[in-house]
Amino acid sequence: MATRTRLTPEQRREQLLDLGVRLLADRPIEELSVELLAEQAGVSRGLLYHYFGGLREFLHAVLRRMADELFEATAPVDHPDLVHRLRVSLQNYIGYVRAHQASYRSFQQAAFGGRPEIREIYEEGRAALVNRIFDSATADELAEVGIVDTPASRLLARGWSAMVEDVFMSWLDDPRDLSEEQVIETLTVSLGAILGLVPRD
Amino acid sequence: MATRTRLTPEQRREQLLDLGVRLLADRPIEELSVELLAEQAGVSRGLLYHYFGGLREFLHAVLRRMADELFEATAPVDHPDLVHRLRVSLQNYIGYVRAHQASYRSFQQAAFGGRPEIREIYEEGRAALVNRIFDSATADELAEVGIVDTPASRLLARGWSAMVEDVFMSWLDDPRDLSEEQVIETLTVSLGAILGLVPRD
Repeated sequence: MATRTRLTPEQRREQLLDLGVRLLADRPIEELSVELLAEQAGVSRGLLYHYFGGLREFLHAVLRRMADELFEATAPVDHPDLVHRLRVSLQNYIGYVRAHQASYRSFQQAAFGGRPEIREIYEEGRAALVNRIFDSATADELAEVGIVDTPASRLLARGWSAMVEDVFMSWLDDPRDLSEEQVIETLTVSLGAILGLVPRD
Repeated sequence: MATRTRLTPEQRREQLLDLGVRLLADRPIEELSVELLAEQAGVSRGLLYHYFGGLREFLHAVLRRMADELFEATAPVDHPDLVHRLRVSLQNYIGYVRAHQASYRSFQQAAFGGRPEIREIYEEGRAALVNRIFDSATADELAEVGIVDTPASRLLARGWSAMVEDVFMSWLDDPRDLSEEQVIETLTVSLGAILGLVPRD
């Protein structure tokens, strides 16, 4: 009790979110229950309600935390070459998804399986990732790889991110003859190849 | 009654499947109930069990029928140019999806939302569409657009199909400044652009 009360409410909240992400690392989200939290971490229903308002809200906050972590993990590195920055971001993306595979799949499943609030968290995260590609590069850098920043380009970049996710997930299940490096290289370069095709009138 | 009994069991089964597809055209799959079938089409629970074994089996058969229809609707036309054939298939794909928007979205939602049998039907349909791209073209035709038929190419083609679906669905919701023709053209040409990047050792 003494140890607990040393944490500020904000720290305690953070600690619970970290716990949620950790518990999701090896189980699907539908297994995140009040019972599990009590059993695994001594977290009571009352505490959960106090900090988040309920299990559902806690789950949403945990998923938002995962989306934020993915966003942080894939932040563009400080390097003058856009293609290199993108390559490193994809390396880090695959690293994050691999480390959180079960919960990432459950996150997707809940997002696409008709839970609108989870879909919203998922889509916000994805939009943030896609928009950062454009917002973290200058128009000249984009032009060098054949990209012009238009609403149509952003639509196609979103489509590219769906391809990235699909290819990584399938590749994790069955790598065929492709090394991780080859998958990352192909997907990195494909962004420019696709966006170079977008009409510009 | 007299009219009904003129149908063979196979015809009656086909008629029920067509009815299922039609009912799904403007409502999500979870609304396909025994009650709805009774109310809208005078189909009894007994009849459904007789022909399909139950509502769940009927629903699966209806979704398989949708996947088959999509496969038929997008069959390669008789034309010597691979890119043209692909363009026409995409035009027909978008036509089919637009005509069955509500049920197609529900189909996807059920497939990705953790209903493994529906996911299987969906993935089989998708694999058939992707594999046909390779199987309906000669090696020379593929080479002309920079494609070599390898397991890695098929993995990327599957990813491309995820992009196609994502872009079409987003574009239907918000067309930005893109005409249907522009979306189709960009996606058609992007297949060669992406698959041309696949490593070949």
